[in-house]
Amino acid sequence: MKKHAIIIGGGIIGLTTCFEFQEAGYQVTLIDPDPISGATHHAGGMLAPTAEVQYQQHDLILLMKESARLYPDLLQRVSKYTDLPTGYRTDGTLLIGADRADGMHVAELIKYMHLKDLPVDVLTTRQARAAEPALSPRISKVVSIDGDHQLSPRLYARALLDAILQRGAEHIADAVISIDGHDPCLTVTMNSGVRVASKSVVVLAAGLGAASIPGWFEGANPLQLRPVYGDIVRVRVPERLQPMVTKVVRGFVEDRQIYIIPRTDGTLAIGATSREDHPQPRTGAVHDLLRDAIRLIPGIEETEFIEVTCGARPGTPDDLPYLGWVGSNVIASTGYFRHGILLSALGARAAVDMATNQPLFPTLDVCDPFRHQI
Amino acid sequence: MKKHAIIIGGGIIGLTTCFEFQEAGYQVTLIDPDPISGATHHAGGMLAPTAEVQYQQHDLILLMKESARLYPDLLQRVSKYTDLPTGYRTDGTLLIGADRADGMHVAELIKYMHLKDLPVDVLTTRQARAAEPALSPRISKVVSIDGDHQLSPRLYARALLDAILQRGAEHIADAVISIDGHDPCLTVTMNSGVRVASKSVVVLAAGLGAASIPGWFEGANPLQLRPVYGDIVRVRVPERLQPMVTKVVRGFVEDRQIYIIPRTDGTLAIGATSREDHPQPRTGAVHDLLRDAIRLIPGIEETEFIEVTCGARPGTPDDLPYLGWVGSNVIASTGYFRHGILLSALGARAAVDMATNQPLFPTLDVCDPFRHQI
Repeated sequence: MKKHAIIIGGGIIGLTTCFEFQEAGYQVTLIDPDPISGATHHAGGMLAPTAEVQYQQHDLILLMKESARLYPDLLQRVSKYTDLPTGYRTDGTLLIGADRADGMHVAELIKYMHLKDLPVDVLTTRQARAAEPALSPRISKVVSIDGDHQLSPRLYARALLDAILQRGAEHIADAVISIDGHDPCLTVTMNSGVRVASKSVVVLAAGLGAASIPGWFEGANPLQLRPVYGDIVRVRVPERLQPMVTKVVRGFVEDRQIYIIPRTDGTLAIGATSREDHPQPRTGAVHDLLRDAIRLIPGIEETEFIEVTCGARPGTPDDLPYLGWVGSNVIASTGYFRHGILLSALGARAAVDMATNQPLFPTLDVCDPFRHQI
Repeated sequence: MKKHAIIIGGGIIGLTTCFEFQEAGYQVTLIDPDPISGATHHAGGMLAPTAEVQYQQHDLILLMKESARLYPDLLQRVSKYTDLPTGYRTDGTLLIGADRADGMHVAELIKYMHLKDLPVDVLTTRQARAAEPALSPRISKVVSIDGDHQLSPRLYARALLDAILQRGAEHIADAVISIDGHDPCLTVTMNSGVRVASKSVVVLAAGLGAASIPGWFEGANPLQLRPVYGDIVRVRVPERLQPMVTKVVRGFVEDRQIYIIPRTDGTLAIGATSREDHPQPRTGAVHDLLRDAIRLIPGIEETEFIEVTCGARPGTPDDLPYLGWVGSNVIASTGYFRHGILLSALGARAAVDMATNQPLFPTLDVCDPFRHQI
């Protein structure tokens, strides 16, 4: 009989985890009332361990580098089971400082990147504009990061869902309300009242929702998840101006962060706000994003405004995910914050390695789901 | 037997025209495949003959003043036949110049308003902020225009539609493709192939669509209508900040025009772009609107961004409407450009006065539908 895994949550983490369990020979059940509707639907999709580097996040950098390394092989394996596009692009990323202070910030980041063995090429403004003529000439510092790639989270997640269903995954469109029971048999109870009793391994990959599924812990929920909101603007580049840019543009403008991601469908995704106030798009944030995007790429003024959406990412106190055993048959895999798309490759493989008693690389001790338990 | 009128077009002009024909004792047929979906859906809704004044538009000013005068009585009569809200607000309008050059522009406009007998009160910044504390202190010139009011075009149009249906209007959800025939019998042909032969009076109130309905003229279409696009941003004021403003704010910021209209539902409509390029919301225009709105009312940064839409207004070469007989039984009533909501009261009454051989005030010679015929 095939081994069985139950994956709770149909975002990028849960879907990739389903896929990797299938690769390991498991029969898979995915439980989610509405897959690809949470943080994944709103994510940017940068696979950018270098451009996204932050000081003092040594442990996170290791995870991001390792996950980026896993991605090309993962995408290649997924493509065996679906013809759907993923929007994967390897054109690379430019990291730009707009004014002189932003340029100094980028120069310091470059030093840190060298320290962390993250490869970057410093360009002159002239070189940068030769590669991307739509860039403003009023920029202070540019580095090219060839190894930082991107994909379209909505497209890629739909491709993953298609792939796992093609391979025989069962999808239960319901919400889990508790995970009860003890070794060796768990009971997963759903909103509809349906219960699944199982000796299977259960992966709790429900993003922010993981904080509201009780039963598997005693006392307070050990997962300290909080929503961190991000506004993202989508615009369409008119035919006559395509392609406006081919590389991802990651910038600092008057010390605000911005990214501009060119999609294969001729749209741009513009984001990088992080707020902890409310889940609706904030007008001031939209204004900042448009101003800063136009500051770096003036032609964005000429694009068609499509939409603003706001996603809630599952944040943790130390910006590291919760990834590890939380019961004899339950693995937590959530709290990926702003890096869910990039880290999904590593998170999925690690969950399978845990379930099959393989050694982990990196060891993931820093991701212990109980580390913030009070 | 009741007299009969066929109104082609279910925007603000057509709906008000239906209502006034009913008031005059007519049986009414409205033909529109999708009422309230054109310019009316995207309009601002200022009833502001003073704040909207422009130099050299003497004829238009007269029409706007007269239509504003008709509005309170019209709304009162409409309210007899529907309980739906209209969003009508009589809190007045502030006209604001942001920087010093904008202030000089406003000061010159004030002179022109005095010349045209348009009543305004000049306020100090302190007085303006006592009335509307959310205004930025960095404004150069403010006038209060108590007589300039507003309503919500979407709400009001739905109320009008409800009222005319309550009174027995027939609605044919189809598009007119031609108006043929001669005195005394016309044939109105629709997309579905259905034809209506009639001795009724026909009012062509299809906005921009009027330019593509042939049959009633020989040679080239005498109506020189062109689409003038306007982007409008809608934001929601959070409960704790309500009301952000109560008056309509009409402003000049670095010589760009802007209006901020507070609705009864706690939202703000922000607009005033005029473009003739393409019918999609333009990212640069959205950026300008947000920047200028935040410049006048900084708290707009804290609002929830709801949507951007783009409407196409039917422009004419001289910014005056086409309003008059174009055949023995056909009246044209279109080309109201940016002033369709305000001028609908006058346009509707004038069409009925024409059909019933009443004297017109103003005479409307300047609105002759054939004045641009080549």
